Amino acid sequence: MQKKRLGLDMKEVMSYIDEHLNTAIEDVIRLCRFATVAAKKQDIVETADAVEGLLESVGLETVVHEIQGSPVITGWMDNGGSRTLMFYDHYDVQPAEPFDLWDSPPFEPEIRNGRIYGRGTCDNKGDIVSRVWALKAFLETNTDIPVNIKFIVEGEEEISSPNLPAFVENNEDFMHADAGIWEFGASDVTGIQEAWLGLKGLLYVQLEVEKMNLDGHSGYACIFPSAAYRLVWALDSLKAVDGSIKIDGFHTDVKPLSEADKKAIEKIDLHEDRIKEFYGMNEFMNGLTGDALKEAFYNAPTCNICGIKTGYQDEGSKTVIPARALAKLDFRLVVNQDPDDILKKLRKHLDKHGFSDVKIAWHEGYPAARTPIDHPFVEIVKRANVRSHGHAIHIHPTNPGSGPLYLFDRYVPMVSIGVADFYSRAHAPNESILVENFHLGMKRIAVIIDEMRNW
Amino acid sequence: MQKKRLGLDMKEVMSYIDEHLNTAIEDVIRLCRFATVAAKKQDIVETADAVEGLLESVGLETVVHEIQGSPVITGWMDNGGSRTLMFYDHYDVQPAEPFDLWDSPPFEPEIRNGRIYGRGTCDNKGDIVSRVWALKAFLETNTDIPVNIKFIVEGEEEISSPNLPAFVENNEDFMHADAGIWEFGASDVTGIQEAWLGLKGLLYVQLEVEKMNLDGHSGYACIFPSAAYRLVWALDSLKAVDGSIKIDGFHTDVKPLSEADKKAIEKIDLHEDRIKEFYGMNEFMNGLTGDALKEAFYNAPTCNICGIKTGYQDEGSKTVIPARALAKLDFRLVVNQDPDDILKKLRKHLDKHGFSDVKIAWHEGYPAARTPIDHPFVEIVKRANVRSHGHAIHIHPTNPGSGPLYLFDRYVPMVSIGVADFYSRAHAPNESILVENFHLGMKRIAVIIDEMRNW
Repeated sequence: MQKKRLGLDMKEVMSYIDEHLNTAIEDVIRLCRFATVAAKKQDIVETADAVEGLLESVGLETVVHEIQGSPVITGWMDNGGSRTLMFYDHYDVQPAEPFDLWDSPPFEPEIRNGRIYGRGTCDNKGDIVSRVWALKAFLETNTDIPVNIKFIVEGEEEISSPNLPAFVENNEDFMHADAGIWEFGASDVTGIQEAWLGLKGLLYVQLEVEKMNLDGHSGYACIFPSAAYRLVWALDSLKAVDGSIKIDGFHTDVKPLSEADKKAIEKIDLHEDRIKEFYGMNEFMNGLTGDALKEAFYNAPTCNICGIKTGYQDEGSKTVIPARALAKLDFRLVVNQDPDDILKKLRKHLDKHGFSDVKIAWHEGYPAARTPIDHPFVEIVKRANVRSHGHAIHIHPTNPGSGPLYLFDRYVPMVSIGVADFYSRAHAPNESILVENFHLGMKRIAVIIDEMRNW
Repeated sequence: MQKKRLGLDMKEVMSYIDEHLNTAIEDVIRLCRFATVAAKKQDIVETADAVEGLLESVGLETVVHEIQGSPVITGWMDNGGSRTLMFYDHYDVQPAEPFDLWDSPPFEPEIRNGRIYGRGTCDNKGDIVSRVWALKAFLETNTDIPVNIKFIVEGEEEISSPNLPAFVENNEDFMHADAGIWEFGASDVTGIQEAWLGLKGLLYVQLEVEKMNLDGHSGYACIFPSAAYRLVWALDSLKAVDGSIKIDGFHTDVKPLSEADKKAIEKIDLHEDRIKEFYGMNEFMNGLTGDALKEAFYNAPTCNICGIKTGYQDEGSKTVIPARALAKLDFRLVVNQDPDDILKKLRKHLDKHGFSDVKIAWHEGYPAARTPIDHPFVEIVKRANVRSHGHAIHIHPTNPGSGPLYLFDRYVPMVSIGVADFYSRAHAPNESILVENFHLGMKRIAVIIDEMRNW
């Protein structure tokens, strides 16, 4: 069988994608039926099996790496190319709580109004399927794939990839590639595609206070200690009402944005009004707007409360002194901040302010990373996006989110693009993707591969 | 049939109680099988029916008052006495959450190690049964009941009795009595019985903050507002780390303890070490001890967090900016503080400190009340306790808890005693009563009635 070459022939690849859109969507729905909540270790084996099967279905040589934690699946396709393209994805998802805010069950995906709804559709099972199907289109149309392909699909991204560092260390040979496509990406509120060249770091901690063995009748609040108030005071000590983080040395290693970064973001419109409208917020944090908002977006580390749990939470009143209180906090870190260092500074801060009774029960995290903005692969993605989507993609120096990019960036320059959009509600109820973005996303992967032919 | 008279004949009443203890306990278990959680409006009708049946079984003339909210049950027994004794009780209970901390299911009462376990055993279904069975012992032994009897049993005490004020207003004729026994009471950590002559007032509020329509990905914490932090800062503004309440004018109407109060409490030992040991606490709030602890116990209003709910609360990590945060707070008020006034001051405080976005979603409450320490009925209770329990009861000017005593104290002087004990865990998991306290509690009610013969 003769392999075809580029040029007019990409029309066949594109047509194949057009004609098989519904079958590809079925694969998204199939993967999203698994409730692969890493935080709860749910459906891990089943999902890993399904992902391996998907990679095998396009001829990738797969290995299921049984590591500590959820398995990592790798795929390898030697096409005799001079370049290698790597995909990093994850098959786990965020918890779906609160369930009652979903319009359809999170793990029973359904299509409504041109969108596919379900936990994992945008983050990032939809991307996995779009990438595999781009390869499938080459194969089924007998079109030459000019680069070698690598997949690394992990199952613990949403719990900060605790076992990926060891995997990378033990599989260093596999880590090299000329370019990589990171797990996620989206179009902005106006529909313009966005690429991200970096990710912030993360330190996630659970704070816990226990002042008694059992809850007390709240009549005794006149003399009993309050775990809930101890936690409130400790949280208050970390961040002032104006949003400034008060941990000593928290900002020491933060570098200002470079001139190149500043120039790149000049062109970007964050569409403040439309974001505010969508989220129903009166204003951004502390009324941030314009350049100050952009500066914070790209370069501000954070201290955020992901959840607080203490005492009675149901309807009506219960008069009780909770014995115990806990908070989940995440700190997004910028390039050059070290999560271990921040953890130490947090502990020191709590002790210094009299909160040695506030325990850091557990923590996880990793540092930030960025790909150089002048890398040739960035130009390839730009050209490909014009071919697939018909408009110029926005290039962001970094995304405000996090991921284990730091493990990869010494081996392979990554660009983060994907099939989500502004309304995808990653991590929130009613997560979804646009069918159209999924459709064009498959095409973009195909033309990126095609563009790499000339690199 | 000839009615018998007092004196040696009380032996028969006492013997009847001794002999029928197990049957009386069956009534406690029967009532506590109802999950009468007022906050959730559970099992209200069923429990009201059962309580009415219990009152009728000793010949009380009952009325089920269908008011707004859960019905109030009254009982009336005209014995031709010159005095009338009233009982105030409630058939509703606190929520049983968290269920997993119960050693046996909260609404499947069981007896272990001389205790009856179950939600409502001590607060206050056990008391209801003990009071009805004291009357039963008179009737079944054909002993004269020298006073008229009134019962008022409501079903919303645990949600601050929102409809009792209207009931009292509409049934003023029924409210008069010479003396009354309030719903609850306990023995202290050493087993000494305690009587309470007053209750603190209560203001219960739910604070709510909503900054967005939906949860956000926590990467955006660099620019999105945080409902959770707004709530934390608002709570912090209410109370300093040293425990002092910072609401302007909060303490304006607080009176110092009177000399009579101070004298009465001098004799009382709060058994600090044993309380600390039981609750597993290192120290009381801010290291309070001795006279300062007593002063706070009897006369300090409070600002207590009963619960906080925001964001992700399950296992592991979820990186999210919660759109919404809520806190349940209760303020215990001392005599002369007005809950409506405190509510206004709370709203004013929040606005003044920039927290107009923190809504008071709902509130409920009532003022404090006290019965004079030199009332003759206090002496009757003291004498009766020596007869039933063989030791001198401790008289406290007020209990640190709350209840709608203020609605009664203009009509009838109340003394609060009951069948609970220090280890009863009212409002908490594993609520229970001692079988022995329930047993002697029935006897105490009987001898109080007997002592009233000579009033």
